[in-house]
Amino acid sequence: MTSFVHTSVSVEDCALLLDRLRERAPLVQAITNGVVTNFTANVLLALGAAPAMVDIPVESGAFAAIADGLLVNLGTPHEEQRRAMREAAEVARASGVPWVLDPVAVGFLPVRTSLAADLLSFEPTIIRGNASEILALAGVGAGGRGVDASDGVEAASETASQLALRTGAVVAVSGPVDHLTDGRRRVRVGTGTPLLTRVTGGGCALGAVMAAFASLTDDALLAATAATTAYTIAAQTAAASSSGPGSFAVAFLDALSTLTATDVRELGAVS
Amino acid sequence: MTSFVHTSVSVEDCALLLDRLRERAPLVQAITNGVVTNFTANVLLALGAAPAMVDIPVESGAFAAIADGLLVNLGTPHEEQRRAMREAAEVARASGVPWVLDPVAVGFLPVRTSLAADLLSFEPTIIRGNASEILALAGVGAGGRGVDASDGVEAASETASQLALRTGAVVAVSGPVDHLTDGRRRVRVGTGTPLLTRVTGGGCALGAVMAAFASLTDDALLAATAATTAYTIAAQTAAASSSGPGSFAVAFLDALSTLTATDVRELGAVS
Amino acid sequence: MTSFVHTSVSVEDCALLLDRLRERAPLVQAITNGVVTNFTANVLLALGAAPAMVDIPVESGAFAAIADGLLVNLGTPHEEQRRAMREAAEVARASGVPWVLDPVAVGFLPVRTSLAADLLSFEPTIIRGNASEILALAGVGAGGRGVDASDGVEAASETASQLALRTGAVVAVSGPVDHLTDGRRRVRVGTGTPLLTRVTGGGCALGAVMAAFASLTDDALLAATAATTAYTIAAQTAAASSSGPGSFAVAFLDALSTLTATDVRELGAVS
Repeated sequence: MTSFVHTSVSVEDCALLLDRLRERAPLVQAITNGVVTNFTANVLLALGAAPAMVDIPVESGAFAAIADGLLVNLGTPHEEQRRAMREAAEVARASGVPWVLDPVAVGFLPVRTSLAADLLSFEPTIIRGNASEILALAGVGAGGRGVDASDGVEAASETASQLALRTGAVVAVSGPVDHLTDGRRRVRVGTGTPLLTRVTGGGCALGAVMAAFASLTDDALLAATAATTAYTIAAQTAAASSSGPGSFAVAFLDALSTLTATDVRELGAVS
Repeated sequence: MTSFVHTSVSVEDCALLLDRLRERAPLVQAITNGVVTNFTANVLLALGAAPAMVDIPVESGAFAAIADGLLVNLGTPHEEQRRAMREAAEVARASGVPWVLDPVAVGFLPVRTSLAADLLSFEPTIIRGNASEILALAGVGAGGRGVDASDGVEAASETASQLALRTGAVVAVSGPVDHLTDGRRRVRVGTGTPLLTRVTGGGCALGAVMAAFASLTDDALLAATAATTAYTIAAQTAAASSSGPGSFAVAFLDALSTLTATDVRELGAVS
Repeated sequence: MTSFVHTSVSVEDCALLLDRLRERAPLVQAITNGVVTNFTANVLLALGAAPAMVDIPVESGAFAAIADGLLVNLGTPHEEQRRAMREAAEVARASGVPWVLDPVAVGFLPVRTSLAADLLSFEPTIIRGNASEILALAGVGAGGRGVDASDGVEAASETASQLALRTGAVVAVSGPVDHLTDGRRRVRVGTGTPLLTRVTGGGCALGAVMAAFASLTDDALLAATAATTAYTIAAQTAAASSSGPGSFAVAFLDALSTLTATDVRELGAVS
């Protein structure tokens, strides 16, 4: 068993990091799936970051060298995009640009599962996924529908820690409560709303937000926690004034744009 | 002339099928055009189905074997996606997974017109399009702008029936009144709103909803009718509280998420 | 220095052109980036034009011959799309179909920079971009983040005029105040809202609207001005009732659908 320090990330640090994001407006390169590119860009813009969806070979590496952070999301990994992902991840590692791997639906689907294994060699700063994906990436699950989401997060917690130690990445497992770990420290984020699972990209866009926050600090666990906290507080605020997933998505973008460090201090639930 | 049984699909059956959809949350694979992937996924999520946009070769066939239903929409048929479509449709037929073909803009445009002809050999469960597309697919029209939408539906009705008998598919022709047929029975659905034509994907997402419903019953005409009824009732409910196409699209997702079997019973207009 | 006629485009002409757009519902082919296809199609539909995202080789040229206007936007120029862009632009020139080039992020990124140079040989009717992009396309800037947006528009104004004279295109530089020129006449459009920069596609969709307006008149500077005026008036109207970028995007589509020639006459700020 891993021995955890529980927890060394404070809500106050998350709040300060949100202010820093607004000052710096980090440039986030997102190589992501075609279903959620629009939503992901709008989430970054609403929060105060600058999105750039540069996802073709030759250009993706050039851009990764000047980006503040990079997201690689495997949701619809077309052949040209796969080459762009490898190129960008390699440059990001070489250039010291923090990058986030979101291994969407790895396990059962062979192309992305093989790709995810390759991408691990470029040492992602943060790995973000649901319990099934983290288990599959760690080689202990088949991915897909086999794991119930809420039980899954607890079940995946120990696996996440081992994956973190093996890869050097912070591993973030999303669920009703989000579990994040760097293999030594463990954080739980309790804010959020089930409506995030009723809007496509609710998880994927969080990966891009993590890439934005990862550009602001060398502590990747703090970055992932601050990203998750800001994101889920805006979401639960939006949920309170929504009539369904349509109005929720709209209110969520509004809430991201008006979210303050004070909101994070008052509503943050990091343990 | 075909002799029609008019009609053997009841509103009550449509209402019961909506309840079944909510219980089963069918997994719908959507290989669809890049313009509407986000909206299509959000429509499925709002209604209570589970979308998966798996659209690359090797993976699309593997996924089709485990999906509950499949949509193949020809709106932006890039080369890699065309291969994924053929692969998924072939597996769907072999595995008994119901699938919907949406032959967007066939007729004038050569690549998709040839592709649609090929895909017919994999025996779609439902073919969904506007009058021009159905006429073009049946080989009696040029597609595109040549057919007025409202006259077109009536004009396409007899052609739809012949196409249904020839292919074994249910054919659904969308318009101010939707016409659906399996070649023997004929159904008209009178609910809806012109605002569906002012939001991109208003027709395309219906194809994905048909794939969800087709997983719930062996009667594909009932499935297509129930899908159209649920979809258009939610749309006309949303239209009543909208100020234009922007607010309509938002209200539509909300209305899909709160739509009940009772709404279907009270508002259904199937004849 | 170029000597400018300042200005020969009237708000009244812009208003009349909006009425003409509603009567004709021009068919606009948009070959654009994957991040904004949905928003672009919805903007065109809301305004009263007919979008068609035909962006694969063989089909893109066939469609360009029958389209009323064409947009080529370089935001995510995948290999297949690049071929479709060249094909469509060549056919548009040969067929006398007006077309708009949006050289997104040219300068630093090599693939699109080379592509943009090639596309200039097909003589776009309008070139639309921000100051950095116009400077980079003209060969006097590196593009990207190097130019501040507000100073940039003024700085790019003389360069825009030279680019217009060299290419024969109207050049539109977006910013807090939009600058448009055909090399002889110069127009400034003062309407708008900063919220357009907080929604992805806020600039890209304007390119599609320019393609729609360019189909209505031989005066491309009038077309670009009328498009910018209609677009930014709807945007500032929407901004007045918005709580952030999410609700703004929704209200913007509603405002485009209800915008009238009278609104243009009363609110237009063309100088």
